Amino acid sequence: MKADRDWGAHAAARLAELAEVSEPGPGVTRLPFTPEHGRALDILKGWMAEVGLEVHLDAAGTLIGRREGPPGAPTFLIGSHQDSVREGGAFDGIMGVVLPILALEKLRDEGVDLPFAVEVLAFADEEGVRFPTALIGPRALAGTFDPAVLEMKDAAGIRLRDAMRSFGLDPSAIPALKRDPAGIIGYLEAHIEQGPVLEAEGEALGVVTAICGIERHPVVLTGETGHAGTLPMHMRRDALVGAAALVGEVDRMARAEPGLLGTVGTLSVLPGAVNAVPREARLTVELRAPEDAVRERAGQDLKDFAQRMAAERGLGIDMHRSYHQPAAPCDQALSCILAEAVRATGGRGLALPSGATHDASAMADLCPIAMLFLRCANGVSHRPEEHATAADMGRAIDAIAAFLGSLEPAPVTV
Amino acid sequence: MKADRDWGAHAAARLAELAEVSEPGPGVTRLPFTPEHGRALDILKGWMAEVGLEVHLDAAGTLIGRREGPPGAPTFLIGSHQDSVREGGAFDGIMGVVLPILALEKLRDEGVDLPFAVEVLAFADEEGVRFPTALIGPRALAGTFDPAVLEMKDAAGIRLRDAMRSFGLDPSAIPALKRDPAGIIGYLEAHIEQGPVLEAEGEALGVVTAICGIERHPVVLTGETGHAGTLPMHMRRDALVGAAALVGEVDRMARAEPGLLGTVGTLSVLPGAVNAVPREARLTVELRAPEDAVRERAGQDLKDFAQRMAAERGLGIDMHRSYHQPAAPCDQALSCILAEAVRATGGRGLALPSGATHDASAMADLCPIAMLFLRCANGVSHRPEEHATAADMGRAIDAIAAFLGSLEPAPVTV
Repeated sequence: MKADRDWGAHAAARLAELAEVSEPGPGVTRLPFTPEHGRALDILKGWMAEVGLEVHLDAAGTLIGRREGPPGAPTFLIGSHQDSVREGGAFDGIMGVVLPILALEKLRDEGVDLPFAVEVLAFADEEGVRFPTALIGPRALAGTFDPAVLEMKDAAGIRLRDAMRSFGLDPSAIPALKRDPAGIIGYLEAHIEQGPVLEAEGEALGVVTAICGIERHPVVLTGETGHAGTLPMHMRRDALVGAAALVGEVDRMARAEPGLLGTVGTLSVLPGAVNAVPREARLTVELRAPEDAVRERAGQDLKDFAQRMAAERGLGIDMHRSYHQPAAPCDQALSCILAEAVRATGGRGLALPSGATHDASAMADLCPIAMLFLRCANGVSHRPEEHATAADMGRAIDAIAAFLGSLEPAPVTV
Repeated sequence: MKADRDWGAHAAARLAELAEVSEPGPGVTRLPFTPEHGRALDILKGWMAEVGLEVHLDAAGTLIGRREGPPGAPTFLIGSHQDSVREGGAFDGIMGVVLPILALEKLRDEGVDLPFAVEVLAFADEEGVRFPTALIGPRALAGTFDPAVLEMKDAAGIRLRDAMRSFGLDPSAIPALKRDPAGIIGYLEAHIEQGPVLEAEGEALGVVTAICGIERHPVVLTGETGHAGTLPMHMRRDALVGAAALVGEVDRMARAEPGLLGTVGTLSVLPGAVNAVPREARLTVELRAPEDAVRERAGQDLKDFAQRMAAERGLGIDMHRSYHQPAAPCDQALSCILAEAVRATGGRGLALPSGATHDASAMADLCPIAMLFLRCANGVSHRPEEHATAADMGRAIDAIAAFLGSLEPAPVTV
């Protein structure tokens, strides 16, 4: 094959082919352990086999294509997920499977030998749309899989265990999938940014510093209702006025602290009449940051602010951290090599955090991780109009190939 | 009848009897032009007749009991409405019909002659619960009745015109009900406060300075949504953060301006997910004040603030005044006499505005108005637990009787 082949156009064509493998409706709907999942894997298997990978499906539903390395050499992992959200796009997840297959094809075309094995992974379920769980594949490899989730049911009442069995898998074999960290060099995931930063910066590619930690606080503020015409201002305990102060503080705090993201995404009011003072306001506060210490301090500061504010306004408050996920920092050594590879494609190697969770979040329990972000149009994801250009994907394939080509793993202890 | 009769207990017993005249369910539900309305009027007719009033039902459904005065003497009007909200209380409205009947009974018992006629009015519909209109009775007397409302329908599809006909009324005769202002001295309405001021001040009775003007502004703020993890703070146009600033400003402004009431009673957010930056926030701003100039200025200031705030935050804004009702000031001369009558019962004659609308709002187009507020438990109205004590109602009957007894109308020009 000729060296100046248009890898980006090739990636675009493959993603267009996979986008057809969807439930009917707008965009792409490809849920795990469904006929669509099976058809997508059949296509991927073909492409993996074309480039000489040894293909198998593990017990967690992860399709694995392995390029063998020298005897006793360690393995580098690279991949993402095959599934989409409902009426999602053609890039989120699946692009991170298509690109490394083409990068390996490029390396093969160029006759590059690697001093390690490479496995391309297509995980079954990262979005968690069908079952109220996700990340089974990477958790199985990392040894953090909890068998209790097999009892969870989808909307049709089908247990995850039975869905996997119908898909030809043996869930009882999942615990045996755990990898020995000693044999794994690291994990790389290429993914659309799902945000507007690269586009705003005019960069095709970025190197992720960390997958942000997340915490969520549902808040209920309780005051007293009354007639908007007859309750004097000085006697009011207006729950919405308290909620507004909290919304303002979340925004102020997040803007003041580099890296911190603070969002109030939901807010509702009772009784909710034009002429009634609100007696109850419910809202959710979400904080994200690449550094756990920054996020934890912000969460505590916000709680202190809310308590003080509620006391000053005579409001009752219930605010507690209902969800918490620590940050997964990317490995500095791998990220430096990745940034160098991005610079080789003409980019700046811009560093940015990932605000969203990825398969890499779970893989961080197994091995060092790195992530390559691709610019996406208007920062849009999880919608049919989600898009990355062929040119950007071409640069990403170049960067992945360059990254693998320059990786020099420490010798594995045998 | 003996002079030390317990008028308050008598009022309480009568209101308890009328509270039974309700649709089934909690509290009182007595809507206009229904069988319950008819039964309530039958009871009121009996009490009016007992005290020697000449009773008739006018074409707008207002029950009128007239105590004749000297030949050619003018008429003083006094009353309120018979209807309730759904699952409302036993006092709102109907108490203002029961108390003046007992006050006239007291005056008769005491052998007091009045130099004018008195009419006790039981209006059909002040709450506007059944039809999307209200105040037909007082508007008919004031000559401000709009016949177009007769075509309005209730939830069952019954036109107001037909509901009135079924009730035995002739809607075509409503325009002829208009009174000549020259023959009317004024209108007094006794009503529960529907707020907490009198209770907080330890006063049974208060004298209303004005019925507040009202304006309402629906507001739609439009920003842009995005993933709460991937949209950096400095790139956000968060509609809820803008809405929160507006909620805070409404509260700040109203607390800073004496007499002004400002309320955001409803607020909703789209898309409304814990991890999505809000793209749209809808809210309603309501302003009330006894002085129109104060309210109008506040409305304009708030609009200016909202425009500036939206521009600073890159938000679209649609804010317009959708509803507007000027204040109805109470007549100073009548209110002075009323305050004196309240002081005669041992009260301070506390002056306070009415934030809510009343039949008096419409009667202000006909004649000078005055309003007597009664303390209500916990400021609660429009709920089954709405309550005024027998003792307070006794004081109100004394005050109404004293008011009528000390009123010296200017001679009517004949």
